[in-house]
Amino acid sequence: MEHVAVIGAGSWGTALSTVLAENHERVVLWARRKELAQEMNDMRENRRYLPGIRLSENIVADASIERAVQDKTLILLVVPSHAMRETVRSLAPYLRKNAILVHATKGMEIDSLKRMSEVIKEEVPEHFHGRIAVLSGPSHAEEVGLKAPTTVVVASERIQIAEEVQDALITNHFRVYTNPDVVGVEIGGALKNIIALGAGVSDGLNFGDNAKAALLTRGLAEISRLGIKLGANPLTFTGLAGVGDLVVTATSRHSRNWRAGNMLAQGFTPNEIISRMGMVVEGIKTTQAVHRLAQELKVEMPITRELHALLFENKAPREAVRDLMGRVRRHETEELALKYFENH
Amino acid sequence: MEHVAVIGAGSWGTALSTVLAENHERVVLWARRKELAQEMNDMRENRRYLPGIRLSENIVADASIERAVQDKTLILLVVPSHAMRETVRSLAPYLRKNAILVHATKGMEIDSLKRMSEVIKEEVPEHFHGRIAVLSGPSHAEEVGLKAPTTVVVASERIQIAEEVQDALITNHFRVYTNPDVVGVEIGGALKNIIALGAGVSDGLNFGDNAKAALLTRGLAEISRLGIKLGANPLTFTGLAGVGDLVVTATSRHSRNWRAGNMLAQGFTPNEIISRMGMVVEGIKTTQAVHRLAQELKVEMPITRELHALLFENKAPREAVRDLMGRVRRHETEELALKYFENH
Repeated sequence: MEHVAVIGAGSWGTALSTVLAENHERVVLWARRKELAQEMNDMRENRRYLPGIRLSENIVADASIERAVQDKTLILLVVPSHAMRETVRSLAPYLRKNAILVHATKGMEIDSLKRMSEVIKEEVPEHFHGRIAVLSGPSHAEEVGLKAPTTVVVASERIQIAEEVQDALITNHFRVYTNPDVVGVEIGGALKNIIALGAGVSDGLNFGDNAKAALLTRGLAEISRLGIKLGANPLTFTGLAGVGDLVVTATSRHSRNWRAGNMLAQGFTPNEIISRMGMVVEGIKTTQAVHRLAQELKVEMPITRELHALLFENKAPREAVRDLMGRVRRHETEELALKYFENH
Repeated sequence: MEHVAVIGAGSWGTALSTVLAENHERVVLWARRKELAQEMNDMRENRRYLPGIRLSENIVADASIERAVQDKTLILLVVPSHAMRETVRSLAPYLRKNAILVHATKGMEIDSLKRMSEVIKEEVPEHFHGRIAVLSGPSHAEEVGLKAPTTVVVASERIQIAEEVQDALITNHFRVYTNPDVVGVEIGGALKNIIALGAGVSDGLNFGDNAKAALLTRGLAEISRLGIKLGANPLTFTGLAGVGDLVVTATSRHSRNWRAGNMLAQGFTPNEIISRMGMVVEGIKTTQAVHRLAQELKVEMPITRELHALLFENKAPREAVRDLMGRVRRHETEELALKYFENH
């Protein structure tokens, strides 16, 4: 039996702990704040981030990163994207040689424009570089906590590593697929938050389901465009980490990014939204990072551009969505087809 | 200026009339029932199928198919799939030589397993075969009637024909794209109704958003599989007639198919559902047709198969969805990739 730890006791880290606890007698759940760790151990509940879900006795919360990591063979990293580098740096000295590092964070590092697996690689000895994986897919933490049927995808450059993670996590209600395309799975997961923000804006302006469906379709196209440029397999975006995650994030009211977009439509500023929600909104930071990345790589990303204008350039929501809808491209496939044939 | 007619005064035909009426001084809207035509002319509203939307004075309802069709250069066919053959047969004698026929019907002919454009071709002189187009995409009639922003796709083997239709229909809030892939656009439109039924079943059983997202993702894969086998361009399924329409149909409560699925989950029989809804549920007939087609063509379509069992073989809803979720395929892309490389 593996020794497992989850680093990060937000909604998703806590929900993943409950999944691991079905297959493992002991799951260490690391929380940055001592009080939260103590509360989870005392109350058997993460009342702030995953209220209403009873934590099994197999889950032990701990605020010491050294104790959490030492002797573990499987470590799930579930911290916000801006905290990934520092967190990995702080735990790296305690890693066992045979540890696998799986991250489940949907975002990018803003300053470096790097994906999470790239950040992790830079902070651990080279020996671990082939032992990194990413978990993604359509998976609201609240539903996973309630054992609602869920499917996710685990990607790793080495398929055996992905399969080890699959074996550790798979249960009757939590289905895990593997995929060798780390870049595609990370890009799909990070960028869907931008489109979810946009969907929230569209809904907040009462533009309707037709408009939102068009936005998701165009959004998937621009995610694929950037992903392909970075070396992803186009097929990944038609799978769970692409279409699947995009649909669940952009159409569900559980989604923080959707709610943040809704508040943007009502005229709140990004800072007001973050302070009111009291949680990280990955989509806001990701819009900033991806907008720069798209410019550097010369990839056309109109939805990202309009959201950037809305978030950071004082553009009015209605004007941004109008500019987006007004774009005329007579032939639907011409642009997709160009990319496609360039790559095959 | 073109002379235009819409054949079929259901929700969608009526909504499309309101779009055409923005660009044309006179739109003839054919209704099968004289009383409905009379009522629409008197009340300026289709109270049964599109209540609350005022019909412009440019719209003239008529129950005579001869008067509706004669002298028209653009004819939209918006009748249920089971009525398409008979309707086209009855209007064919009155067609002008330069008429374009556009259908906006999402379904297949059950007995023949033919697509709507194939049915139309069989019922009109060969001269018209290059003048047929299909309109599809994420477009709830109710929202189109309210002038909510909407994008659709028009496909025709001859791109000039698609462009003529585009010019006739495009408005500020109704964006029309063209696509040369008639097969892909028709298959996407017809088959999404099956997946929408499935989404309704999943929601009716309270399986949650994660499960529904997984269902849509797997559904898109099986639609693409059948489409590719029939000669469609795989890219079409990532566009408006694929992902876009699937998302809007499966996640919106406007959708008849979603509602029908919901009632299936509650234990109603297909006949009870049809009589209670008082409207055609294309997804039920399409499931029947596509199930047979998949068997004939040896295409694996697990969602269609389980829905067929649920609809016509007395399988319990919960058991059907369980069997679907339980299917294990370790590697996400292996099956997609196979198809992909077979075709390129």
